[in-house]
Parts: sequence; C-alpha cells; structure tokens
Amino acid sequence: MTASPESLATLVQAIAVKARAASSGLAIADTQTRNQALLNLSEALEARSSELLSENQKDLNAGEKAKLPTPLLDRLQLTPKRIQAMAEGVRQVAHLPDPLGEILETSTQPNGLTIKKVRVPIGVIGIIYEARPNVTIDCAALCLKSGNAAILRGGREAYHTNTALALLIRDTIRGLDRLPDDAVQLIPTTDRAALNCLLKLNAFIDCIIPRGGEALIRFVAETATIPVIKHYKGVCNLYIDKAADFAQAERLAVNAKCQRPGVCNAIENLFIHHAVSAPLLPRLATVLASKGIALRVDAAAEKLLSGCKGVSLSPATEQDYFEEYLDLILAVKVVPSLEAAIEAVNTYGSGHSDAIVTTDADAAQQFLRAVDSATVYWNASTRFTDGFEFGFGAEIGISTDKLHARGPMGLRELCTYKYLIYGQGQMRT
Amino acid sequence: MTASPESLATLVQAIAVKARAASSGLAIADTQTRNQALLNLSEALEARSSELLSENQKDLNAGEKAKLPTPLLDRLQLTPKRIQAMAEGVRQVAHLPDPLGEILETSTQPNGLTIKKVRVPIGVIGIIYEARPNVTIDCAALCLKSGNAAILRGGREAYHTNTALALLIRDTIRGLDRLPDDAVQLIPTTDRAALNCLLKLNAFIDCIIPRGGEALIRFVAETATIPVIKHYKGVCNLYIDKAADFAQAERLAVNAKCQRPGVCNAIENLFIHHAVSAPLLPRLATVLASKGIALRVDAAAEKLLSGCKGVSLSPATEQDYFEEYLDLILAVKVVPSLEAAIEAVNTYGSGHSDAIVTTDADAAQQFLRAVDSATVYWNASTRFTDGFEFGFGAEIGISTDKLHARGPMGLRELCTYKYLIYGQGQMRT
Repeated sequence: MTASPESLATLVQAIAVKARAASSGLAIADTQTRNQALLNLSEALEARSSELLSENQKDLNAGEKAKLPTPLLDRLQLTPKRIQAMAEGVRQVAHLPDPLGEILETSTQPNGLTIKKVRVPIGVIGIIYEARPNVTIDCAALCLKSGNAAILRGGREAYHTNTALALLIRDTIRGLDRLPDDAVQLIPTTDRAALNCLLKLNAFIDCIIPRGGEALIRFVAETATIPVIKHYKGVCNLYIDKAADFAQAERLAVNAKCQRPGVCNAIENLFIHHAVSAPLLPRLATVLASKGIALRVDAAAEKLLSGCKGVSLSPATEQDYFEEYLDLILAVKVVPSLEAAIEAVNTYGSGHSDAIVTTDADAAQQFLRAVDSATVYWNASTRFTDGFEFGFGAEIGISTDKLHARGPMGLRELCTYKYLIYGQGQMRT
Repeated sequence: MTASPESLATLVQAIAVKARAASSGLAIADTQTRNQALLNLSEALEARSSELLSENQKDLNAGEKAKLPTPLLDRLQLTPKRIQAMAEGVRQVAHLPDPLGEILETSTQPNGLTIKKVRVPIGVIGIIYEARPNVTIDCAALCLKSGNAAILRGGREAYHTNTALALLIRDTIRGLDRLPDDAVQLIPTTDRAALNCLLKLNAFIDCIIPRGGEALIRFVAETATIPVIKHYKGVCNLYIDKAADFAQAERLAVNAKCQRPGVCNAIENLFIHHAVSAPLLPRLATVLASKGIALRVDAAAEKLLSGCKGVSLSPATEQDYFEEYLDLILAVKVVPSLEAAIEAVNTYGSGHSDAIVTTDADAAQQFLRAVDSATVYWNASTRFTDGFEFGFGAEIGISTDKLHARGPMGLRELCTYKYLIYGQGQMRT
C-alpha cells in the first residue's frame, strides 16, 4: 500500500478526530453496555475463527517468504486454541469490576462544599505494537472496559490478521446502539509515515502506550508530542544478602533467570554479599550452568568460580551490568555490603523489578525502601511483575515511568480522575 | 551575568546531578527530619527578614528603572507581612500529614505473595516560574515535605530576592545532618540558555512544573524532554440551566467573573438556557455592568440586551469563546439545551473549571458526568479550584493534563508509588 504523505496525514487525522468524538460517548456509556460489547466480542471471536485463521495464514505465508525468524512467526501465528484463549481473556475482562465512577476520595470543606474525586476514562489511547495479534484484542478489550477510545497501530507482519480483527471488533460494536462505532479503530496502513503523523496528534490523543522492543519504544517516545507511558527495558536484579537462606537463594536465582529468559522481568544481574559468596556462589554457578547460563563475572567472582567444572565464565565489563540480555547470560558481582548492593541496583537497573533474598527483616526493609524501582521483592522471584500475577485480571503494559502509572498497568491505569464539587451557592470571598 | 554556552551547560548539569544524588537521601529521610527542616526554614525566614528585604529592594529598584508594570512590581515586592505569611505557610506545610509511606492498596495473591502499593517521592522536580518570590519558598517547602529534590528557576526580575531565599534554605538544610545539602537548589543564572539546558536533562530530572503565563508554559512544554505537568490557561465556563435559581445564578456569575478576574479559575464564558434567558439575562447583564464587565454576545443575547442601559455590548466572534481574557470581559451565548451547553463547555473550555447552576438534580448529574474537565461544579463558583480551598493545605500548581495529576496539585501529587512484594520464596511456574 502506498499513499502520498498528504493523504496519509489526512487519513490518520480523520481517525483521531473520530476517536476523540467517540471518547465522549464512551465516557458516559454505562457499565452494562461496555460489558455487553466485550461479551459479544468474545462470542464473535469464536464464531468467526475460520475467517481469522485464513487471514492469519496470509501473514504467515508472507512472513515465511520474507524469512522472518521462527520465534516471530510463532508469535504471529493464530491457532484455534489461541483464538479460544483470546475470547476467554475478553470474557474475563468483561467480568472484572468497572473501574469507572469509583469515588477515590471525598471531603466536605468548612464552607459546605463537598468534593468528590471520581475515576473517569483518560479519553483517547493510542497503542503502538509489533507482531502479536492478541495485543489487538487485549488492548481493544481493556480500552472498551475502561471507557477509552482506542487507536491501534500494529506491525506490518500482522497486517491481514489485525485488519480482520479490527473488522470483527467494529461489527461487534456496531451491534450495540449505545456505543460509538469508532470506539476502536485500526490504522489501516503500516507505513512508517502514518505512525509519524499519529504521534503528533496531541490535540486529539491523550496518551500513547508503545509495546515492543526498545528501538520501537525509543522511536515512539522521541517522536511523540503526546505523553507516552512505557518501559524501555527490564534490567532486573537479584541481591543475595549475607543473611540469605541458601536453598531459597538458589531456587529464586534459577527461577528469575531461567524460567523465561527472554522477557522483561527476568534478571540480568546477580549481586551477592561477599560474606556468603565463597560457600554459595560455586554451588549456584554450577546449577545455573546446568541450565545453560553463561556468566559474566567480576574479579572476586572469577576467583571463586575459576575452578568450577562446566561453568562458562567471562570477565564482566562495567557496561555488561547495564545490559538487557534477554538471553542465557547473567552478570555477577560480589558486593561488600547491603548499601553497595542497593547502590548497584539503583545504578545498573532500569527501575523495573528487583529482589533481595534475606532472612534479615531489617536488611529487607532497608532494601525495599531505598531501591527506586517500580516493583521491589523480598524473597520472591522478579518474574511476578505482571498484571495477571498482581491480580489486575489483565495488563496493557508495564511502566518504569514515575508519572501517572508505575509497574504493571491494568484497567485503573487507563483512567484519570476529575473532581466533582457539590455546592449550595458557595461563593469565594 | 554572562557565560559561554558550554560553561552554562556544565553548570546546569552539575546541579541536576547533585539533585539526583540528593533525592536518594531525601527519599529515606524520616518524617521528623523533613518536618524539622520546614520548622527551621520558617524560623529563619523571620529571623533573617531584614536581609531578605534589602536584597528584594535591589530587584525593586532594578524593576522600577526598567519600568516594569505596577502589578508585576507588586507581585515582586516582599514586605515584613509577606515574609511573615511565607513563614506561616511553611509552618502549615510542616504540620500536614506526611504523604510518604502511605499504603495505597494491598492484596495477598493466591500464591501467598503480599503486594503493597506504597506512596514514594517522584525524585527530582524542576520548577520554572516568574517573578513571585513566595513561589521559591512554597515549592521548596512542598518538595522537602514530599521527599523530592527541587531545582528552582525563577524569573530575572526576582534574581536577588531568589538568590537570598535559596541561600537561606541551604543554610537551614545544612543545619540538619540527616538531609542532603543539595535538596533544594536554585539555578544561579536567569540566562534563557540555562533553562534550555535544564529542560533537556531527563536523565536526572523526573518532572517539570512550570508556573506563569501561557507563553512561558508553552515554551517549557515544547522544549522539555522531561515530562511536564501544567495548565496552559483557564477558559472556565458557567452554565445557567433552565431550572436555575435566578438569585443564585446571579450571585455565582458575579462571583466567578468579578471576585478576581485576573486568575485562571475566573470564568470567561457564560452559557444560558434560552428558556430563562429573557427574564434572567438583562438583569444579570445590568449587575455585571455595574461591576465594570464588558460583554461579548451572540445574536440571541444581543437581542435581549440591546435595550439595557449601561451595559457594554459587542458581538462575539467564534474565537472569542476560546479566549482567556483575565480581564473585565465576559463572552455570553444563549444555548438551546443542556446538551448544547455541555458541548459548548467541552469545545471552548480548557478543561480547567466549569459550573452548572440548576435545581434539577438530573441535569446536574448529566453535566457533571459529561463535562471533561479537571473540576466540575454544581451550584458553586469556579473560583474554588485551588489547593487550599480543596483542603490540600498547599498547592504546587493546577493541572489540566489528564496523566498523573489533574486539578489542584498538593503534596500527594508530588508523589508516585512503588510496589513492595513480600514473599516466602515464591517462584513463577
């Protein structure tokens, strides 16, 4: 598909204008209508799965021809089971409590004014993502439930699949006369110039959430004139304190590194207190090696590990501790104290997820207080940073920003608030 | 003061680096230490008032020489009474509840993980403002109380006064060995190039709050790579419904327009339902005229008002309804329905403060629900949009943004949260 820059800009702006108009209707749509839309969407996904599979096959064929990497083709693929899971996810969102209208705070002032702080939708949300077609459905469902108009811009690889999904969503919404047709719209081109236009439409779009690799997110954050909520990367850290339970430390390090190394909440750095490094580190390195993990180590760790059979070692550079490997690699550093561990976590980490393993409650409290990250764990794996695991029922992303939302983002994080003030004729004096 | 662009950039970056380092110490400073700093600051303001007055006199002399407008000179001036009020304000902030450490939400997951969402400081806040020296003290106090490091950049007109205030703040903090010296820093130059540098230091500064005229705020928002929380302007609206109490409508319109026309929460537009415009509008226009208000009116209002003695009328253009007059001018439009009023408010308003006057609870609820503004009033003056009036004890600004903070911003709005997760060795499966 090709189009002139002018016609692309016109096209994208028209979508944004329609989304802004739709957001007014969505904001006042009642709970039941929004939930019904989700239940209908869930049914439509199941009823029209063969149509979705055949459109998905076009993307898979193109992807194979373009020799896309196997993991990407896997993420792109729909199967009857995956469609079923998408439908089930949408049904679950329908059954979550309505975030809208909840009174967050209320007060009555001495002059008799009653002030209520009430949760309302943000307005228009733009979601920029890559090849996973289920993001189309997840984001549409979360935005509908939270009363936001959504503009979706998926990756080129999933073009046919996303187009079919967007059509299905639109048909579902059109069936409910109390919801605006333009509640969920897909940008109908994967031209990069259309994305550039979209990211400048701050007059119509309230918030952009990019999902994908660091390069995409950085491009979005640097191009957008619209506020962006994001995390660039997950450089997560595990610190084994001198008062750690050895068996627990070993299990948690293995889980946080190996259970799914390619995701943002897996650890990239292990810091260990020098007082326990001699008895614990060789044993831990051997277990990690048996899982295929290669270690990048500082001089102190190298000294302890150089004799360990089967352990893959290389010296760590300072830069290595800043790296998000998303791979079977772990950087290791022996630290002289809890304070040094906290400083290392705050220096090298990306503010995503960090953990301390210790039986010392004071040390744990000091770590929990001083580590400046979205999620800080005591005696648990960093792999739990996830909207589902946090009990949010669904997740639209994870934020390492400090403004608006931090950590896993569910329905509440797609909302803002407004103040409603009830008077009896009060005037300012 | 002149400096090369390179040395300015070095200077500003050094301040930001020191602020970032100070923010770690502030985040773990206990409540008592932060409150003691404020009490000491309050005392120091009183004890050193003659020094402050003499530095302020330098700015006043320069301002008179530069023929600054009288209202600006008035805002710039310190008096013993104003210093006393600043000291009292700081003491009040000291006595407010500590926003930090409050547990906002808590849950225990089926796997036994306990998740606590806890309020923590944002980190480093930059405040960009104009000539009012009390902003220096207010912002320093609010940031210290909320555990944030502050970088202050005041206007050229108040250079000597702000420098003296910053020195006083620094002396106060230095007296408390548990607080970092660099908790509050003033940019020691009013060179615009230094502001440009500051606004790009997103690696060290978490948030910028600009206070002042629309031109300054727009410059900050467009230049910064750091998130900015702001309102550009306050185009506030009052809608008089067909079920309004006439006497109340009249009192509220006069208060919202005339009590202090130059501030952001004064109204600029009056919308009135056509069913009550004939009996009410002439009477209201006469009262407004007696207060010196000139009206810009649509054709329907002109027809009703053209015979009114002493009323200053001119036809309103479409653009007039978008205007923030901050002056003795009010734009008036007769609307055919509640729905038309809501649309007018959402179209022309700036999302700041809007009010409906009505005795009809259903109409009020519809207005409160559908108006997409930070604060929406039923039967009260828009002039109450203010942190003090909302019971926040203090205010660092007002936001018409929808992300992070909306409406008046106090101590809580200077905070973010983090999740603390307490486990017993839980691993992700």
